[in-house]
Amino acid sequence: MNKGAFYKLSYGLYVVTAGEEGKFNGQIANTVFQVTSEPPTVAVSINKQNYTHECIQSSRRFAVSILEEATPMTMIGRFGFKCGRDINKFDGIQVRTGKTGVPIVTSHSVAFIEAEVTGQMDCGTHTIFLGKVVECDILDATAEPMTYAYYHKVKGGKSPKNAPTYQKEAPSAEPSASPEKASRYTCTVCGYIYDPEKGDPDGKIKPGTRFEDLPADWVCPVCGAGKDKFEIVSAQ
Amino acid sequence: MNKGAFYKLSYGLYVVTAGEEGKFNGQIANTVFQVTSEPPTVAVSINKQNYTHECIQSSRRFAVSILEEATPMTMIGRFGFKCGRDINKFDGIQVRTGKTGVPIVTSHSVAFIEAEVTGQMDCGTHTIFLGKVVECDILDATAEPMTYAYYHKVKGGKSPKNAPTYQKEAPSAEPSASPEKASRYTCTVCGYIYDPEKGDPDGKIKPGTRFEDLPADWVCPVCGAGKDKFEIVSAQ
Repeated sequence: MNKGAFYKLSYGLYVVTAGEEGKFNGQIANTVFQVTSEPPTVAVSINKQNYTHECIQSSRRFAVSILEEATPMTMIGRFGFKCGRDINKFDGIQVRTGKTGVPIVTSHSVAFIEAEVTGQMDCGTHTIFLGKVVECDILDATAEPMTYAYYHKVKGGKSPKNAPTYQKEAPSAEPSASPEKASRYTCTVCGYIYDPEKGDPDGKIKPGTRFEDLPADWVCPVCGAGKDKFEIVSAQ
Repeated sequence: MNKGAFYKLSYGLYVVTAGEEGKFNGQIANTVFQVTSEPPTVAVSINKQNYTHECIQSSRRFAVSILEEATPMTMIGRFGFKCGRDINKFDGIQVRTGKTGVPIVTSHSVAFIEAEVTGQMDCGTHTIFLGKVVECDILDATAEPMTYAYYHKVKGGKSPKNAPTYQKEAPSAEPSASPEKASRYTCTVCGYIYDPEKGDPDGKIKPGTRFEDLPADWVCPVCGAGKDKFEIVSAQ
């Protein structure tokens, strides 16, 4: 079984929110899809360990915000690698309240879909929730939706451990670094790789900046971990 | 409710096959996604009216072939707009038999995933089938997987009426044709639009060719309908 085949499936990148006043959360998801057109229904796959799962279970409603390509890694890191039980993920994020009372993230969102849960399927570590759409709209008609492929290729993003698409050893077609090249460093918290050739555009770090030359207060653009949480990626 | 929001969700393009020796079928699907990584499971959403649905129900197994960008519209048309009850969709298509006996389409496939059904959810017009992966592999490491966005934008493809993403009136940002321009024609069978500015690369029709000047034996690159099944797209 060559699990690299799973990487050839195509997805978008979304923030799924759930809950209501007083108890709500949001998380990154890539498995959101329309199931029927009459009536319009959408489904999402959520890890049972995630706080958002608890919020969907209790509130029976959720919203999907479709992220744009320009979404900063810091926002993806906060919603994808941090837990809503520990921090307020919505700090500084634009949110509106939907028809059903569910919070809808509008920052960096191309469009949103709000749904009421009408069914669910136990899938082991995850649950697929089916939702009847009660409202949806386009928020930015000109922005391109971010695809999962774009996130991985251009943004250098990783899957968190609770994601359906997480793999311990991601297959890579990239050649190993030659000894002459500046070293790449990986974040031990989220798996993000700092590539000196690319720098960190979200953090205003120019391409060509060695990891060693990053400012001391520089943090992982995905999960916010400090420089001390990084390890060198050894050449094979 | 602005259903244009649904168009912002991202998908791939797949052939889902099911059944076994003597009774099997395949169809185009865009809703295929990994649900869990331990054990690896995938889910597909299939219209209850489709023959493939019947084959999954009876055989309890299915395979997903992940199509490459270069997949000709004729292949998509055959698997997406024709019925396996009426024609043999596999004529001239490369197929291998999977571990479970399910036929796997390898023509124009980047990778495949073969699964045994372990659960299903009734979603009205559609069923979501959950499958435990028994085999998967990459077939062409260099080809790019086709995304649904690519299919629509570059290939000019449409959704068949049984698709989850079918919409009667697709929102369009394109300006209406000016009277001076050569007219566009739409296929009344599948909705494909012949645009003289683009021609039909799969059918070796050069850009700039008017519909009226197409050879008499030219057929719709999506569903194979003849020229007489086309209607002019009137300027608004």
